[in-house]
Amino acid sequence: MPTLEQFVARQRSRMLDELRALLSIPSISTDPSHDADCRRAAEWLGDQLEQIGCPTVEYLAGDSHPVIWAEGPRAPGRPTVLVYGHYDVQPPDPIDEWVTPPFEPTERNGDLFARGATDDKGQVFAIVKAFEAVLAGGPAPVNVRFLIEGQEETGSKILFDLLAREPERVRADVVLVSDLHYYAPGWPSVMTGLRGVCYVEITVRTAKTDLHSGLYGGVAPNAHETLVRILAGLKTAKGRIRIPGLYEAVDRPSSQERDGWNELPFKERAFMRDEVGAKALTGLERYHVLERLWALPTLDIHGIRGGFTGEGAKTVIPAQASAKVSLRLVPNQKLETVKRQLTRAVQALAPRYAQVDVELIHGADPVVVRTDAPPFALIDRAFREVERRGVTLTRSGGSIPIVPELAKEGAPVILTGVGLPDDRLHAPNEKINLAQVWKGVRVFGRFFQLMAGK
Amino acid sequence: MPTLEQFVARQRSRMLDELRALLSIPSISTDPSHDADCRRAAEWLGDQLEQIGCPTVEYLAGDSHPVIWAEGPRAPGRPTVLVYGHYDVQPPDPIDEWVTPPFEPTERNGDLFARGATDDKGQVFAIVKAFEAVLAGGPAPVNVRFLIEGQEETGSKILFDLLAREPERVRADVVLVSDLHYYAPGWPSVMTGLRGVCYVEITVRTAKTDLHSGLYGGVAPNAHETLVRILAGLKTAKGRIRIPGLYEAVDRPSSQERDGWNELPFKERAFMRDEVGAKALTGLERYHVLERLWALPTLDIHGIRGGFTGEGAKTVIPAQASAKVSLRLVPNQKLETVKRQLTRAVQALAPRYAQVDVELIHGADPVVVRTDAPPFALIDRAFREVERRGVTLTRSGGSIPIVPELAKEGAPVILTGVGLPDDRLHAPNEKINLAQVWKGVRVFGRFFQLMAGK
Repeated sequence: MPTLEQFVARQRSRMLDELRALLSIPSISTDPSHDADCRRAAEWLGDQLEQIGCPTVEYLAGDSHPVIWAEGPRAPGRPTVLVYGHYDVQPPDPIDEWVTPPFEPTERNGDLFARGATDDKGQVFAIVKAFEAVLAGGPAPVNVRFLIEGQEETGSKILFDLLAREPERVRADVVLVSDLHYYAPGWPSVMTGLRGVCYVEITVRTAKTDLHSGLYGGVAPNAHETLVRILAGLKTAKGRIRIPGLYEAVDRPSSQERDGWNELPFKERAFMRDEVGAKALTGLERYHVLERLWALPTLDIHGIRGGFTGEGAKTVIPAQASAKVSLRLVPNQKLETVKRQLTRAVQALAPRYAQVDVELIHGADPVVVRTDAPPFALIDRAFREVERRGVTLTRSGGSIPIVPELAKEGAPVILTGVGLPDDRLHAPNEKINLAQVWKGVRVFGRFFQLMAGK
Repeated sequence: MPTLEQFVARQRSRMLDELRALLSIPSISTDPSHDADCRRAAEWLGDQLEQIGCPTVEYLAGDSHPVIWAEGPRAPGRPTVLVYGHYDVQPPDPIDEWVTPPFEPTERNGDLFARGATDDKGQVFAIVKAFEAVLAGGPAPVNVRFLIEGQEETGSKILFDLLAREPERVRADVVLVSDLHYYAPGWPSVMTGLRGVCYVEITVRTAKTDLHSGLYGGVAPNAHETLVRILAGLKTAKGRIRIPGLYEAVDRPSSQERDGWNELPFKERAFMRDEVGAKALTGLERYHVLERLWALPTLDIHGIRGGFTGEGAKTVIPAQASAKVSLRLVPNQKLETVKRQLTRAVQALAPRYAQVDVELIHGADPVVVRTDAPPFALIDRAFREVERRGVTLTRSGGSIPIVPELAKEGAPVILTGVGLPDDRLHAPNEKINLAQVWKGVRVFGRFFQLMAGK
């Protein structure tokens, strides 16, 4: 019976081939033209789960983005671990900035570059392989169930609906979510909070049709000009969001939690230069960078549509313009309230001659997690054995909309991961560090054993 | 020998078929994938000019966007009329807003809808047919030369270079440019001025790569936010352009010229509602709308690139954003100076952490035309005979970059046209009114006769 370490050493090359195969499938859930690819990625994972010994593998509620439901061999009397993850990925745009194609996984200096490498395929893969390693060493030590969806990047509608109908799916002793990352290399982390998100499209209409700027420039309202003025009005140059009431609900982290953050090996200059890749950090200067990232609401513009954006010069006065804009929400803020506050602020900035609409595209409430249940001590120990350092309690600035649903039947939810902070998820040249994947196999395998009391 | 009126009545149906054929060619000069179509449009026109009796038809200086040079039969001792026009057209975007496809000319209520219908194929066509009508009635009354280019919409580089090498091409007794429009139905017009244009792309770069707003939102600079702040800073909500020095050079029109404009049948409310299709007009309120359109500089945003603009929600913090922006210039402003002033203003609005570049894509100095040479009285008479109203002196807010070059050898330049103000050039559902085309055949035919003293 091989140990977890032996398993990884012997199977590494085969596992790398498998991971490459999974990452080669362009399962972009935001783009309907990739529906078949999403289905393909689900089936690839389902086949894997069968091969490693899961007697039950089902594809639930969805032809194109099914939820994978798998159960390992029964371990009567033992606890149940529910594993959550997702096989869908973000679009690869801007495609030009990838050094190697996003769906041709390429290894460079120990990193594997591909869209979805860290978010979340590589991490789901590590847990599947961890379970394979455990089963290779003997009978199942715990009951393991997998709930792997294909719409995490688009709002998890299928899974929300499924859990509303069948809440017992999340009845477990612990939920393990590996969709996040270390605080820093060598510093594994468990998250105590996730930000929510309020993602909208703001559309401005100023005339019946686009007009020629030669003929009408100087008097015709310009939809882009109106939009730009609204967007510039939503935040000060110093980073304060100008939406009345927005900051009122914000629960500031306890001084204890903030003290913990101060002890993290955070170096602002290196973070700015090496991770963000910028010449300055923005936002509310009087708050620590980690508080700005984890515990303060934000507002970002993602893109602006309308008018002429092709090559060359077209002298059009756009009649319509729209911007994709999102706010990240922090504990005690409510998606519904923020959406209302934002809409009101946008309307107040709009001139009377413009028709302005705010449409919610995607949203999630923020999440706070208590970390005092026993499984947290076990994941800490698993990391400690492999990494020689236990977990640090941090937060994530990102959002996983389904997390509150996973917790609804009372199971503690462990938000963790083997990604690294520079994995560039959602950005060009996303990667996962392969050493982290192999560590993940050992950590999560060890966690399954520890849950069984071994 | 048919009169011009008889010619039009008899040949109308054939001419309409020909005009449809010309408008069916998608000769979009801004898009290299349409280079062959531009060539095709040039050859179509060249063939026409041969068929109507031009002994010389040449394609000069350019495989894909040649300048057509044609000469009618010699008329020794008679004056020479140089006809300028262009066969290239604007892109049809936004394509969704066309009622019928832009390159499938469709007649509705006496209007022919197609990209290029009024700008400028339909108008070039009217002059070619006018010359055909004149030649059908006997020997050439005057020497007519055609100079028809395929890059008017992209800056006329080939023609500029050609005229620099061979300035004698524009040696003529008068230059006739039919690329403009009536002031109003029944009100033919000759333009005394054209605005110039300074069309740039402003590019902002704030980080090495796009980032995930979950992970970095709150501290990472956002290229769109920076761009939006710069753009909003370039103009007040009341329409004053905030570029230091910009208004200093502006030559206000004489009170005499402005008095003339006041006598035009201009109705602000109808103009706003029916032509602009908006609920308000913008710009500097203390100036008359016509002065804002013809004699004041403007600034318009045409489109913004970068980030994510696809379907759904991608939570990216864009590292790069760029805007297409243009200013229209008025008499006494200089393109070079304005480009410098704009660049300085943009740089002054940019935060230090952003790299901001301003690139000139397309430009033209403004034009002022004196209208006291004898041919102006003749075009006035030609219009008066056909339309029962002589020409009104107006200006155009648009730009035709090559016009100053056409005037360089001393020929007076008649800027006129048979378009109507609601022809929607550069916009979806561009059209030309067919009655205007047939009037154009008669007016320009009559002008050729009058130039010969007939």
